[in-house]
Parts: sequence; C-alpha cells; structure tokens
Amino acid sequence: MKASRIKITVEYDGADFVGWQAQNNGPSIQTALEVAIRSFSGEEQRVTGAGRTDAGVHALGQVAHFDLAMGIEPRKIVSALNAHLRELSISVLSAEKVPGDFSARFMATQRHYLYRILNREAPPAIERGRVWHVARPLEVPEMHEAAQLLVGKHDFTTFRSSQCQAKSPVKTLDKFDVVTRGEEIWFSLSARSFLHHQVRSMVGSLKLVGQGKWTVVNLKDSLKACDRKALGFNAPPHGLYLSRVDY
Amino acid sequence: MKASRIKITVEYDGADFVGWQAQNNGPSIQTALEVAIRSFSGEEQRVTGAGRTDAGVHALGQVAHFDLAMGIEPRKIVSALNAHLRELSISVLSAEKVPGDFSARFMATQRHYLYRILNREAPPAIERGRVWHVARPLEVPEMHEAAQLLVGKHDFTTFRSSQCQAKSPVKTLDKFDVVTRGEEIWFSLSARSFLHHQVRSMVGSLKLVGQGKWTVVNLKDSLKACDRKALGFNAPPHGLYLSRVDY
Repeated sequence: MKASRIKITVEYDGADFVGWQAQNNGPSIQTALEVAIRSFSGEEQRVTGAGRTDAGVHALGQVAHFDLAMGIEPRKIVSALNAHLRELSISVLSAEKVPGDFSARFMATQRHYLYRILNREAPPAIERGRVWHVARPLEVPEMHEAAQLLVGKHDFTTFRSSQCQAKSPVKTLDKFDVVTRGEEIWFSLSARSFLHHQVRSMVGSLKLVGQGKWTVVNLKDSLKACDRKALGFNAPPHGLYLSRVDY
Repeated sequence: MKASRIKITVEYDGADFVGWQAQNNGPSIQTALEVAIRSFSGEEQRVTGAGRTDAGVHALGQVAHFDLAMGIEPRKIVSALNAHLRELSISVLSAEKVPGDFSARFMATQRHYLYRILNREAPPAIERGRVWHVARPLEVPEMHEAAQLLVGKHDFTTFRSSQCQAKSPVKTLDKFDVVTRGEEIWFSLSARSFLHHQVRSMVGSLKLVGQGKWTVVNLKDSLKACDRKALGFNAPPHGLYLSRVDY
C-alpha cells in the first residue's frame, strides 16, 4: 500500500528539549513525534521539520511532514498523536494529507519568528522560561528604527553562528517589527529562511540599541563588517518562538 | 525601633504550591515570602494576603502586607525578595510603605479575577498549566449573557464551597465579562470579595451554558436554588488568576 504524506503543525515549549532535531544528548521534539507516530501506528517514520529550532526555543506553529502507510483520517492523527504526547509540552494543532513530494523544509516560502522580551524590573513568574527578562527600560522606537536597516537582502555573516550550515550568508529579511505589548516587547520577523542564530543575534544587538549602548550607526557598521566579532551578543533561546511557516 | 508596614504586589504561578496559605502538606506562597523576608532581614514576620488563592491558582497582582523593623528602601525590598525567590515561580512586582493600620485583607475594596479557557481541539503546549483546556467550541455570547444574571447582589450559596468560612453567602458581583481573546475565552470578574470557589463554580456552570447543555434559565434557577447541589461543576484551578486588588 502506498504511504500518504502528512503535514502537521506543532506547538511546543522548548524548555524540556535539546531542540527540534534528534540528538544523543537528550530528548528532542523530532524524536518525541517519531515515538508518538510509532506508538499509534507501529510505523518507523522520519519526521522532517521546517525549522530546526535550538534547545529552549519554542514553537507556536512549527510545520513538519512524515509518511504513513496506514489509512487514517488526518483529524484522527491529531488526536492519536496528542494522546501519546500527553505528558510532554508538545501539542499537534492540525494534520492534513499533502502530495507525496511535499517537503516541510524545502518548500517553505516564509518563516515567521517572534521574540519576546519582558521589560520590567521584576523577573517573570507566570512567563518564566517563555520570555527574556530585561530589567532596565529599552527604547522601542529606536530598536524598531534600527531593525529596518536589517530588512532587505544582506550578507548576514555578522549575525550567523559559527556552526551555521547554510551555503550562503546572504539572506533576504522581509519584515522586522519591534512593538510594545503591555510589559513586553515583541520582535516579529519574516523571511524565506534564516541563518543559524540569526534571530537571536539580531535581537541581542538591537537590545544594545534599546539600551542606548549602540546607535543605529553602530548597528549598520556591525552588519557591514560581515564579521561575527562585530556582533553585539546573542539573545537567550527561551524568548524565541517559531510562530508560523507559509508554503 | 518602630516597624514599618510594607505593602507588596506579587505575581506567581500556582502550579508548584499548595496555595497562598501556609499549610502542612507542601510549599505555600505565604511561607515562601516569609522565608525570603527572613533571609534578607533576619526578621520573623507574618505575611497577610488579600486573597487566599487555592492550590494551582495563579496571581498577576496578589497584594500582601507585612511589618519590617529594619530600615530599608521599598525598592530594595523588591530586589532583595526577588533575589531570594529566584528559584521559585514567585516575583515581587512592587513594594511601598503604608500606614501601620493597613490590611491587605480587610481594606481591599475590589478584587479582580481572570479565568482563561483555551478553546481549541489541541491541548496547550505553551500555556500548559495556565489555561483550562476545553476542546469543543463554546458559545461566548451566550456565556456572557448568562454571566450578567450573576452580576449584582445575590445569595451565592450555590456557588460556594462547603469549606467556605465567610459569614454570609450574600455577595455583590460588580462585573462578569466573557470575551474571546484569540483561541482563548477570558472571564473577567470584579467584586469587593468572593466566596470560596465562587469564581471556579460560576465559570464551571457558564461552561455548561457555552456547550448548550444549560440554558440561561437553568443558570438562573441554579442561582435561585441557593443549594450547592444545583451547581454545574467547578472549573479547575489552573485557569484562574487573581489579577488585581484595589484599595
């Protein structure tokens, strides 16, 4: 019997995981999903995700695909997976059958990320582990203005991890908005694809702008340097969310 | 030296605690604060809260008071307490000196509660433990309409825990709004004071209205019955937040 290709959308809290990708040093989201698939279907299937989120990074709408030989309605896949994921902070939001050549990774046209800073003196209790706590007030308009310098097609070498496996450091950033949301500051980014650590590197540098330690010109120079040593610093993973993937 | 009375506002995630009040069966918010006060000041002080939240119930703005003999600026109290609460999901948002006869419990003029339902098929991953998950769609306008029957001065015996210690079951509910917030439904309630389990009992009964199992008339009859047996059921604690207290 010919297998069906299934596309799923997944929400997770990254705190308990070594990241999306299966690794030897602890539990991954990918492995948790593969175990859940095996548990309800008996099938050993590989799950491929749109974005390989790092340890501690969350997802509101990660997209992944896998094949399934058994005949089963997509909405029953959702409840079967969630039943087996009950003890974990992973939830399958939806499932649908897609053509056999669909790839969650290679066919994504836009990836959307959200980064949340809690900008108040007191540390988070309710949102502990889900926001980056910055106690000193940050200037949001300055950060938004600086972020616009990063929008467009650039060599993002400065904002790229040394472990990044992308062929080229040139990427096109389509959107980078910085807005106040109550006590939080939300950074919303969209691009076809991102370099490894790109979002966290850019948010870390923008924070310096928000503190007044960097000017907009400093950020521009940092981008132009095309040198990792010109980076401000990386924002921590637990404020970052893969919020949506478009196809 | 005369002690100062200190008023603090506190945020906490109730998941790890047996509730606000010190008990023998596990860690409480009250005890955690008393331990933190002792740790930085060396003083054994009793902390009194505005609302004795149950196990699992959260607070965005619980208010409490305590006395302190040592002379210390209020904003240093905030950082000292938070330094000692670092490992716990408790955060002190603010502190101020108040007159010696101030009582967080007895001088509150309004208590505001929020109840959050996540109303979607998939269980929560990010908001796990911070919302009540209801998979089937609920009718929000019907719930809001029914909630208005509970606003005003009533005998709330139906919505009162058998362990409630209040002298009278008659309370005045000033506000009960039910609105959609993305995938969530938010119930916002305000009153000078509430009976034990009153919010959870009312939300549990409104959920039956939202499901179409109860009509608005059923809810009215339930209130009029003044009988705990006429209750729909209690909503679980982990969707409930003490959001603000006014003086």
